[in-house]
Amino acid sequence: MNERFTKGFETIKQYVTTEEAARMIEADALADIAPDLRKMIIEFAYGDVYSRPGLDAKSRALVVITAVVTQGAAPQTKTHIKRGLHTGLAQTEIVEALLQLVPYIGFPRVQNALTIAQQVFKEEA
Amino acid sequence: MNERFTKGFETIKQYVTTEEAARMIEADALADIAPDLRKMIIEFAYGDVYSRPGLDAKSRALVVITAVVTQGAAPQTKTHIKRGLHTGLAQTEIVEALLQLVPYIGFPRVQNALTIAQQVFKEEA
Amino acid sequence: MNERFTKGFETIKQYVTTEEAARMIEADALADIAPDLRKMIIEFAYGDVYSRPGLDAKSRALVVITAVVTQGAAPQTKTHIKRGLHTGLAQTEIVEALLQLVPYIGFPRVQNALTIAQQVFKEEA
Amino acid sequence: MNERFTKGFETIKQYVTTEEAARMIEADALADIAPDLRKMIIEFAYGDVYSRPGLDAKSRALVVITAVVTQGAAPQTKTHIKRGLHTGLAQTEIVEALLQLVPYIGFPRVQNALTIAQQVFKEEA
Amino acid sequence: MNERFTKGFETIKQYVTTEEAARMIEADALADIAPDLRKMIIEFAYGDVYSRPGLDAKSRALVVITAVVTQGAAPQTKTHIKRGLHTGLAQTEIVEALLQLVPYIGFPRVQNALTIAQQVFKEEA
Amino acid sequence: MNERFTKGFETIKQYVTTEEAARMIEADALADIAPDLRKMIIEFAYGDVYSRPGLDAKSRALVVITAVVTQGAAPQTKTHIKRGLHTGLAQTEIVEALLQLVPYIGFPRVQNALTIAQQVFKEEA
Repeated sequence: MNERFTKGFETIKQYVTTEEAARMIEADALADIAPDLRKMIIEFAYGDVYSRPGLDAKSRALVVITAVVTQGAAPQTKTHIKRGLHTGLAQTEIVEALLQLVPYIGFPRVQNALTIAQQVFKEEA
Repeated sequence: MNERFTKGFETIKQYVTTEEAARMIEADALADIAPDLRKMIIEFAYGDVYSRPGLDAKSRALVVITAVVTQGAAPQTKTHIKRGLHTGLAQTEIVEALLQLVPYIGFPRVQNALTIAQQVFKEEA
Repeated sequence: MNERFTKGFETIKQYVTTEEAARMIEADALADIAPDLRKMIIEFAYGDVYSRPGLDAKSRALVVITAVVTQGAAPQTKTHIKRGLHTGLAQTEIVEALLQLVPYIGFPRVQNALTIAQQVFKEEA
Repeated sequence: MNERFTKGFETIKQYVTTEEAARMIEADALADIAPDLRKMIIEFAYGDVYSRPGLDAKSRALVVITAVVTQGAAPQTKTHIKRGLHTGLAQTEIVEALLQLVPYIGFPRVQNALTIAQQVFKEEA
Repeated sequence: MNERFTKGFETIKQYVTTEEAARMIEADALADIAPDLRKMIIEFAYGDVYSRPGLDAKSRALVVITAVVTQGAAPQTKTHIKRGLHTGLAQTEIVEALLQLVPYIGFPRVQNALTIAQQVFKEEA
Repeated sequence: MNERFTKGFETIKQYVTTEEAARMIEADALADIAPDLRKMIIEFAYGDVYSRPGLDAKSRALVVITAVVTQGAAPQTKTHIKRGLHTGLAQTEIVEALLQLVPYIGFPRVQNALTIAQQVFKEEA
């Protein structure tokens, strides 16, 4: 556990519960073929990038949700809407961010993302 | 000038200077072949969507910048970085939002967007 | 029910059966979190855009099928192939439009779209 | 000149002037590094695909314009709008097809495509 | 069975087992609505393109895996990882190619592709 | 200059000339607004990813060229074709990799990439 990993792991706790953070390390679904992916996500994505100053966690979560919705990446849309709620984004803010995307990426990807958001909101209720 | 157009035009002023808002209406570059595009942008994008409550203008601007950068749409990246600055986003916040995208969309589109941001920052200085 | 909604709802009937049109309004799956999405689809997509003169409904359906197939948006590919059939597009015309896309978007997205078309054709038989 | 090439070359004449068709063969810009690309375009795209029965040339042109606009491929947007006009598509039909895309792919790519269409319409006037 | 089909069918055997090659012809899932798609894949993709000299089968497989992963095309990611293994690519080479994509397309599509690779590796074990 | 930076800088020399490697550090075009982007590219992309064992430099270059061509990222297509040549990829191998993409991403992006390749080949001659 180097310094970047520790920093990444501390930063993740702004985005997931302590239990989920522990699970991310203990139960890596890709550990058998690509154990370094998880390491890269914690060290690079969270340790180097998310932990930077100059933009608050809620805004970072909004930016990431927008990126994965624009790409049409369904599993990550679910993951990052959950993380966005954990940073303190209100359900309304997430819904509004998705509706704000309609004029820029069109209805199809927004509609698919809202269906995922609806499911996350139910699970978290 | 119907009610949605008026509402859209009022909302645009949070994103551009009064002079630019006036120019958007008086000097529509596509007026000869598709005059209704400008009308749709003002009535639908600004009148119906941007003007909704529940998310502040700075967050809406961040979401839109992220969407057009993720799509690789260069002219709109320039337009919406300018509008983001006008809503009060700091240059640092825009740069941080772009760097936050690296783990999600990769270096190429982020690098191209930062080059555009640099040019906008110079023009606005 | 404003004028645009009424116009949109009339236009939709060129693309879906009367029963489906009624269901679109009565049974909005996203009504709890984003009731305005349905409203935007009816008022903006159908009321403002699909209802424009200058291009017939079959051509509009072909254009929309092409867009969602090119984006790789599976649920919308199904929806709009069904609507295309309802406007009077022949199954052959839809298959030919998809094959015409091979040189422009490659085999993968065309193959996925043909699999969806095959399923729609069976359901509609 | 095999049968597919001949068929492709005949089919191309529905999409470009006879002069342009001749130029496509005589002046292949990529002849020095990839002479087979032009051959593939004529034999496969035009000989095998465009020449198929079951969908008229104007509809094929609309489908191809939509695909390249949705991808954001600027040089091909220009090429295929020109070819669309040559098949007999009216300028209005092309503009309407582009506006029809707004609810599905968003304003940015449509706006960029309309700017290209405007330029083609001027050059062809 | 023309010459290009024969050449394509021979080339396919570098990418799939003899049984699978036979099945591709005998059991075309889209035979009822688009029998020509299979024909185009064998004649054009394999007969004209894969069979070209100048790049070995393993490199062609790597290029194709990269393309479908970058597009986010899940069914084709599975298909082409299997074909890559058949050409002799090691599991490690495929995993490394996917990790190499992280800085260029971001974590989401790489993570989804590694999950598919993991499943293929299990099935082939 | 930490260990990852040093490792990244060593790895880069497989992809660019020593002069270019030096220039990448001394003349960072984005140094005024985002000095950390260059650092991330050297430390993460080259130090953590490109330097991994299990796949040779030529294959990594092919994978990266494919990714940026599939995304339609023009400036990076130029950069990575140059780096590919530096790793020892033959011009023919690069052209063949691009033609191999036609059945998977379509002619438009391949044609644009070949035009860029042609220019790089001339500059490097």
